[in-house]
Amino acid sequence: MYSIILAGGSGSRLWPLSRELCPKQLLNIKNDDSLLQETFKRLQTFIPAENIISITNTKHYSNVRYQLTSFTKQPFVLSEPIAKNTAPAVAISVKYIQSLTDEDPVILAAPSDHIINNIESFKNSIFKAEKLANDGHIVTFGVKPDYPEAGFGYINVENNKVNQFVEKPDKNKAEEYIKSGNWYWNSGIFMFKASTILREYEKYAKDIYDIAETFNFKNSNEIPFVEFDKMPNISIDYAIMEKSDNLVMVELESDWKDMGSWESIYDVSEKDKDGNVKVGHILDMDSKNSFMYSSSKLVATIGLEDTVVVETEDAILACKRDRVQDVKQVFETLKEQHDDTHLVHKTMYRPWGFYTVLAQGKGFLTKMIQVNPGQKLSIQSHNHRSEHWVVLSGVAKVVLEGKELILSPGHSVDIPVKAIHSLQNPYEEELKVIEVQKGDLLIEEDIIRYEDMYGRV
Amino acid sequence: MYSIILAGGSGSRLWPLSRELCPKQLLNIKNDDSLLQETFKRLQTFIPAENIISITNTKHYSNVRYQLTSFTKQPFVLSEPIAKNTAPAVAISVKYIQSLTDEDPVILAAPSDHIINNIESFKNSIFKAEKLANDGHIVTFGVKPDYPEAGFGYINVENNKVNQFVEKPDKNKAEEYIKSGNWYWNSGIFMFKASTILREYEKYAKDIYDIAETFNFKNSNEIPFVEFDKMPNISIDYAIMEKSDNLVMVELESDWKDMGSWESIYDVSEKDKDGNVKVGHILDMDSKNSFMYSSSKLVATIGLEDTVVVETEDAILACKRDRVQDVKQVFETLKEQHDDTHLVHKTMYRPWGFYTVLAQGKGFLTKMIQVNPGQKLSIQSHNHRSEHWVVLSGVAKVVLEGKELILSPGHSVDIPVKAIHSLQNPYEEELKVIEVQKGDLLIEEDIIRYEDMYGRV
Repeated sequence: MYSIILAGGSGSRLWPLSRELCPKQLLNIKNDDSLLQETFKRLQTFIPAENIISITNTKHYSNVRYQLTSFTKQPFVLSEPIAKNTAPAVAISVKYIQSLTDEDPVILAAPSDHIINNIESFKNSIFKAEKLANDGHIVTFGVKPDYPEAGFGYINVENNKVNQFVEKPDKNKAEEYIKSGNWYWNSGIFMFKASTILREYEKYAKDIYDIAETFNFKNSNEIPFVEFDKMPNISIDYAIMEKSDNLVMVELESDWKDMGSWESIYDVSEKDKDGNVKVGHILDMDSKNSFMYSSSKLVATIGLEDTVVVETEDAILACKRDRVQDVKQVFETLKEQHDDTHLVHKTMYRPWGFYTVLAQGKGFLTKMIQVNPGQKLSIQSHNHRSEHWVVLSGVAKVVLEGKELILSPGHSVDIPVKAIHSLQNPYEEELKVIEVQKGDLLIEEDIIRYEDMYGRV
Repeated sequence: MYSIILAGGSGSRLWPLSRELCPKQLLNIKNDDSLLQETFKRLQTFIPAENIISITNTKHYSNVRYQLTSFTKQPFVLSEPIAKNTAPAVAISVKYIQSLTDEDPVILAAPSDHIINNIESFKNSIFKAEKLANDGHIVTFGVKPDYPEAGFGYINVENNKVNQFVEKPDKNKAEEYIKSGNWYWNSGIFMFKASTILREYEKYAKDIYDIAETFNFKNSNEIPFVEFDKMPNISIDYAIMEKSDNLVMVELESDWKDMGSWESIYDVSEKDKDGNVKVGHILDMDSKNSFMYSSSKLVATIGLEDTVVVETEDAILACKRDRVQDVKQVFETLKEQHDDTHLVHKTMYRPWGFYTVLAQGKGFLTKMIQVNPGQKLSIQSHNHRSEHWVVLSGVAKVVLEGKELILSPGHSVDIPVKAIHSLQNPYEEELKVIEVQKGDLLIEEDIIRYEDMYGRV
């Protein structure tokens, strides 16, 4: 069996914790591992790592790859040059899998942002589905709804045949569905043979099929921009599943949760006696059924009810729980306003540690950089900025134009424009450095990498 | 006429905007001027500046003095060595005024954290009261209540004679008072002749009277710690006003507001059509009758009702409007927990500009310092820390051990432990500097000042 992990989500609904460049599948919300890592680990219990293909878009590619190196040395990650929803992603992933094997394998396509707690019953459903997929069906996995969630997609089923898909019905509709008994939540997980799904693409999404046919993954796993950009922006549900008459459903009895909103996070989290979920530095008086999340600062709450409060370094959300679906709209508004709080966090995690933007203004940018023990930033230079480093704690090994410097706390060094330099922490203690950038163009993209231990050259 | 401005408030109820070291009277909440400055300006319309005495405690002394220098070159500010509530403060202020004049003047005692919008009718009430004070009465100023505020003190009046004081009644009591018609809000403003009030102290607060008698302000305006520390911690309302049978009331018809809580700030602020008050970077969807305040970061709110959300650099408050009185309890809890978010802001305003703590950890502390045009930090040295300055923007004039350096953006300098140094911005542009402190003891108090243009030596 092969698997496709769909890891291209945009991160709008868990804003401000998720950002466009830090979507929810890459966050560790419940565990030490991110949702993507949890997904990979789960699949790995019955599919060999080299048969698991992840697909994401270019913005998340290095992060996805980096996260998966915890489980496999050479993760297969396809990078879409532009975000185009799931229908194109599945089509080219299937084509890619065909380039790896001469057989007609069964493929499990799974989103990367779900929580599935009961792996044993998940596997049972998978193996039940495998038989149906081998018989030439497309299998969708349905979850028995336990409340009328308006944010999910629903599927109507009779004798295991899928009749109808409804995406995000209103509350009343959702309640009707639950009463009727033959409606399930659409988990977004599908299983099919490569030949089966491609036949459906040819039939119902000929444009996607034709473009995918032109890709030749035998020589390279690059997805050419010009062709990919011609793909329609459409989900596999709309493009294929709603149209196909070859769909059967297998019930997923595995405590499945789509981490699609703050409400779902609240839902899966442990609550105190007043129904509150408190994460981080929270001081509460008398709140009820509320979700409080602090990433760094003190959040004091008094007398709230059914409210979500989320604090991050540069944005705060306060939202009634029944309005969490509208967080997406806040995200979109910020995007329209070119407000970068939709895009990135002030703290950016890197393979070597992280940095936090402390202050910025005309001609300068100040960061605190933490280099974890044994880690090293790439050997690099910048065309538009000089840098000044001051060591706060730990010891830095700096190479500047071939000259090695060992800097202890309080010591500093100037890195002129265009000078080739590297920063390394070969010691046991975390290295913290203040970096002051000066120049007319202070952007992450102004970097020439000569050597990088994380393969980013 | 003389006046005493009581400027020793603790700043617990407008947390997190106010802090113990940045109480509400020193904040500019509605205007460019702080509530203290507004108070001084108001009194100055009918009392000469040199007859206005402010009293605060040692923690706020330099800030109070600095704020008042906008109006008078030599503000008279008494500094209590320890906070002891209003009864001791009024007693020693009256003694101080006696040291300035041989007459028996009428004195107006006024809190520093009120808003009074109608100055003309305020003055009318003052002049009406002056006659009564000259006749030997203690005059209290009462405000006709327009809603049953539970956070205020109430006074019961018959034929202008004050019968009873009630501090913070419950909601039901407050409603009864409003119905009965002869109850007023206690504005906390009083007027009396020096001899009148001292006679009442001798009668009802002999301990305070006796200690105040020992102070000799003819030679120095220092308040000796040992004697002052013996004073009871009690308000003038409890110590004198509730006991005296010489109290008359004058009504204050001047749109008076006690800025005692977030509810009062909401109350005096302009609202949009949905009853929301939005200050700073707010993005709201469908909230109603709520107060949103952002000091720096984006605050996104969705569907809130009757809620207060206040964002500051290191603490966030989310509170139902009818619970704002409990903010004081959050403040007290933080104090008990030795959580510095009750005490200071990450940004501290100084006569020369401000600084913001960007990052701190074991052995280091990083600040961004802004020195305003024409300003200069004191000539100083530190016994326990070295400093490293990097100029971000503007131009710095640094004197280090007698040697003058001119530093432009990107340039840096090391200030060793014990080195005598100063930082100055003699230019037109704001000067921004990153300061990295290194040492075992990184506290504001580790400073020896040799020369200071703001009189802080």
